[in-house]
Amino acid sequence: MMFDLNAYLVEKIKRINAALQSILKTSEQPERLLEAMTYSLMAGGKRFRSVLCGAAAEAVGGDLADVMPAACALEMVHTYSLIHDDLPAMDDDAMRRGQPTCHKAFDEATAILAGDALLTLAFQTLSSINTGNEQQATKWLHVIQLISHAAGYCGMIQGQMLDMNSEGSRLTLNELKSMHRLKTGALIEVSLRCGAELVGANFNQIQILENYARQIGLAFQVTDDILNVEGDPAIMGKAVGTDKLRHKSTYPSLLGLEQSKRFARELIENALQSLESFDQKAEPLRAIARYIVERKR
Amino acid sequence: MMFDLNAYLVEKIKRINAALQSILKTSEQPERLLEAMTYSLMAGGKRFRSVLCGAAAEAVGGDLADVMPAACALEMVHTYSLIHDDLPAMDDDAMRRGQPTCHKAFDEATAILAGDALLTLAFQTLSSINTGNEQQATKWLHVIQLISHAAGYCGMIQGQMLDMNSEGSRLTLNELKSMHRLKTGALIEVSLRCGAELVGANFNQIQILENYARQIGLAFQVTDDILNVEGDPAIMGKAVGTDKLRHKSTYPSLLGLEQSKRFARELIENALQSLESFDQKAEPLRAIARYIVERKR
Repeated sequence: MMFDLNAYLVEKIKRINAALQSILKTSEQPERLLEAMTYSLMAGGKRFRSVLCGAAAEAVGGDLADVMPAACALEMVHTYSLIHDDLPAMDDDAMRRGQPTCHKAFDEATAILAGDALLTLAFQTLSSINTGNEQQATKWLHVIQLISHAAGYCGMIQGQMLDMNSEGSRLTLNELKSMHRLKTGALIEVSLRCGAELVGANFNQIQILENYARQIGLAFQVTDDILNVEGDPAIMGKAVGTDKLRHKSTYPSLLGLEQSKRFARELIENALQSLESFDQKAEPLRAIARYIVERKR
Repeated sequence: MMFDLNAYLVEKIKRINAALQSILKTSEQPERLLEAMTYSLMAGGKRFRSVLCGAAAEAVGGDLADVMPAACALEMVHTYSLIHDDLPAMDDDAMRRGQPTCHKAFDEATAILAGDALLTLAFQTLSSINTGNEQQATKWLHVIQLISHAAGYCGMIQGQMLDMNSEGSRLTLNELKSMHRLKTGALIEVSLRCGAELVGANFNQIQILENYARQIGLAFQVTDDILNVEGDPAIMGKAVGTDKLRHKSTYPSLLGLEQSKRFARELIENALQSLESFDQKAEPLRAIARYIVERKR
């Protein structure tokens, strides 16, 4: 395996962070709201969704630069959802990405507004692109439609609602899968789809990438659950063992730890197989898929 | 005065509500999240922003139908902001539009998510229009840019942040005006601008309508403050006297009640004067301006 995923991620994340930072810098003066937005957005997340968006663009011959507004918007949507999910009325989490959660570092009202502002800024970013021609405008309008659908009440928000309401009750494996498909899967799928669409992927390529996304999205969640059991809080930057405390249905609780690990590996095998018709430009996507089950945070 | 504003509002609000209802109905089954969204969105608001959006379109020769997705999106953005502003961590209000606020009728987590979902649905609505031609796409992309900017951290959300942080401290008249310009003015201005732009208004027309918007937006806020002093809670559907309890800076507290009323009337006079170059198609805008200072809720 000659592909150096680590070097790849370092370079991409650097570019994504620079783009995010430059969007946040457009405001006139530093103040509390922008400070809270920056605090959470620049807290050193894995940039999983934006990296996938760029890697999907590369797989069909484009570049991260072509899809940067979408990559940035996806990180904003993801970060807003974390800020709101961490609120006392929701999951009531104190630590995230190795630092106090937004409402702990600031206050609850500021955290609610910072989340709202990041969600709004995502759509501002997607609509502020300099469309050289009107075909471009149609493309970006469609990206806004895809992302708002995936992030909305038929997607991510519905998933969070189901997740909260299921605490304490035992879900079936299928219920757990559908919940995750909404809560995290929808945004991951749309990350790849937007990246591919914006650089002119054909229908067949998009279908393959969406299939890949479904497999790795689920594998990502299964691994998250596994890490919540046996991960190292120092590496992960957040508490572990919390799912059990909350009596949450998880893959380890339904399948056991070993069977969950096997399930994650199977999903990754499927994801890799689905990419067979792609050439070496899909190497980043292949390496990311393998990384998902090996990661420690 | 032959123009019947009441009949006009009844007809427009009926059409706007039908459009909102049909957007909400696209989901498969009734469930708690959609229920909470519908509860707040269909709670019988004045539809001020969407009516203004339609009236601006009419003033330059268009129709409400041409701008309906924008009109609906503006109501969704406005309703989401009310849901979040009412939360315990923010203004902690129990009643709104004559019924318990969203977090009282449901719960805090559901209210946060219902607000998030309405904000997201606004952008889904704006991006889901069937663009017959690509010129249309450019227009709608620009509308998304305008609305997200007005609703975001440089507009409405910033205004709410300033409003919260100013409770208990005495603002100057200019500080109060800038705060309102952000908190409510920005979205009102953009309502008129979007309505006008979407039906092909020229630069001069847009400038006039923005000036009109600034005057009536401020007059609307001054009247809100007056109603909070001397309004009838039964007509208004929410408590009065709350500003004083919270030691909020308001126009009556800074200028006195009579001077505030005079100020509101002056603003409306300015708004009417700015419309002088418009013909009878701007009659709804003129009637709305007069209504703002006469309203009882």
